Amino acid sequence: MKNIPIAITGLGMALPSQVLENEYFETLHKVAEGTIEAHLGIKTRRHSVDETQTALAARALQEALNHANYQFEDLDLLIHASVSFAYVLPNTATMIQCEMGKQNSGIPCMDVNMSCLSWLSAFEMAAGLLQTGRYRRIAIVSAEQPSKILNINNLETHALFGDAAAATIIELPKQGNQGILKSKFQTYSDGWDLSIVPGGGLVKSPLHHEMACEDYTFQMDNRRLLLYSLKKLKTFFSEFIDDTTTWESIDKIVPHQASRAGLDFFTNHYQLGEKVVRNIEHRGNCVAASIPLALCEHHKNGNIKRGDCVLLIGTAAGISIGGILIEF
Amino acid sequence: MKNIPIAITGLGMALPSQVLENEYFETLHKVAEGTIEAHLGIKTRRHSVDETQTALAARALQEALNHANYQFEDLDLLIHASVSFAYVLPNTATMIQCEMGKQNSGIPCMDVNMSCLSWLSAFEMAAGLLQTGRYRRIAIVSAEQPSKILNINNLETHALFGDAAAATIIELPKQGNQGILKSKFQTYSDGWDLSIVPGGGLVKSPLHHEMACEDYTFQMDNRRLLLYSLKKLKTFFSEFIDDTTTWESIDKIVPHQASRAGLDFFTNHYQLGEKVVRNIEHRGNCVAASIPLALCEHHKNGNIKRGDCVLLIGTAAGISIGGILIEF
Repeated sequence: MKNIPIAITGLGMALPSQVLENEYFETLHKVAEGTIEAHLGIKTRRHSVDETQTALAARALQEALNHANYQFEDLDLLIHASVSFAYVLPNTATMIQCEMGKQNSGIPCMDVNMSCLSWLSAFEMAAGLLQTGRYRRIAIVSAEQPSKILNINNLETHALFGDAAAATIIELPKQGNQGILKSKFQTYSDGWDLSIVPGGGLVKSPLHHEMACEDYTFQMDNRRLLLYSLKKLKTFFSEFIDDTTTWESIDKIVPHQASRAGLDFFTNHYQLGEKVVRNIEHRGNCVAASIPLALCEHHKNGNIKRGDCVLLIGTAAGISIGGILIEF
Repeated sequence: MKNIPIAITGLGMALPSQVLENEYFETLHKVAEGTIEAHLGIKTRRHSVDETQTALAARALQEALNHANYQFEDLDLLIHASVSFAYVLPNTATMIQCEMGKQNSGIPCMDVNMSCLSWLSAFEMAAGLLQTGRYRRIAIVSAEQPSKILNINNLETHALFGDAAAATIIELPKQGNQGILKSKFQTYSDGWDLSIVPGGGLVKSPLHHEMACEDYTFQMDNRRLLLYSLKKLKTFFSEFIDDTTTWESIDKIVPHQASRAGLDFFTNHYQLGEKVVRNIEHRGNCVAASIPLALCEHHKNGNIKRGDCVLLIGTAAGISIGGILIEF
């Protein structure tokens, strides 16, 4: 594959202020102290109180614009890449433009959704748009509030997810070899029902069906999802890692923070050790914001440096698998 | 702008079997015979009974694959580009893969949403992906069932919309100049509340709000939406049409079939006459499926021919405006 030039020149993030400790969930769900950390590997996560999804998104986007030293008006396109959405219509990117106070800017607003891989798939699409020469600077924002669709009677999912927004500014590199070295996406829809929000779409519409509250919440078959994802991930890597792309050639790996069990298996199975970047311990699973958030945090703390060969990788409801290897 | 090579090699469509005449709505809403045709310029539209969104999508996609002489497995990517969605999670492209019986194909499935311009924005993104050299053939499917989210107490919207699916197979042209000659997208979010489905997203979630049925239905401020869209459309064309892109150089125009009033104004204001392709009379406004459906129907009936210079153009909730000029 030829290298696709693309540079991430701005990174931003936003977290809601409310930090929820495990004690809160352990008391609520009447389980022993330490259960959640032992089981999920998570110590804290943030759940929004009053801050809206678009407000979180706007904060992250402004930080990314500041980082890249651009104004909103410098953008040629704003992509919102998330599972969460503000309204069924219009799309959420439009509402983020509005939240930024840029209602008359004319900057086009599009939404992309590939479940937890929404940011990664939007990054791939944006790389293509840069190639056309018609877009110079694209913002991709992932703003997720899974806390709003969790079943509070299910400890496993209630304590797993965290709210967050992450934003990236991408453009053609001014110099050097920054770009996509390799990318691959796959979807296997026989896993469609392993991880689902059943209600709210056309299949179970509140207008035409008697709905229970649980219908609007995230539901997963945790064990089957993990086993199926790992099986498909092995097939994925048997093709992705080859003579030119060895594990040794990769400096850092930023996986979707789906679960501690998944991260552990992945890290140990391929003997990747410290290369694998984590933020699940204090962020939880932030859905599509996980990957760009981890990239942003670990760039800020110096763990991921310019010039590093970074693998962005994850699984998503569908199930889908996606990986993009970049020179950062 | 340089030409971006792209060829639409397959076109397909699917309509639900139930045809609704104006008489049905005029009786239900107790208005005089002829009111709807006089007001909306629509004679019939299709509303689904038992057929699901994904079944419609699969039928259209199969027709497009047959037209292009490909199997599903020949695709490198399946994009679903619509407002309608089957589930909140996973995305609808995944459910279409499942409906096609291709659960183990691995073909990646992504959703794109720019309201009524979803197909057009997905086409732009897909053109970029082809440019990267990593995708050879991409299917874009728009499957809309607005009938499922209409307020049956509101005649204006109830009789305006129709269900439909349309699919396109795109790839690099094998020869000739097929491609995007020019494209432009704009979003002005000060029009966000002129056309909206207020409930079902995070802003008014059924889990956290007392909801009325109307909250889940499509609502528009028809007069303000038309005036605002036409105003922004004039600005759009004042930039889009220039010395190199004259109205005379365009053979056919395929507009989003938003409303008869909008189509009439556009056609008359720019004196476009027979160049403007319509299907609203028997399809209604089919949301994001409108443009690819009209393209498919008018290619089938010989009105749009290979080599024609075709302008694909529309407005969308947001509001957004988009135009792509192609050599078809």
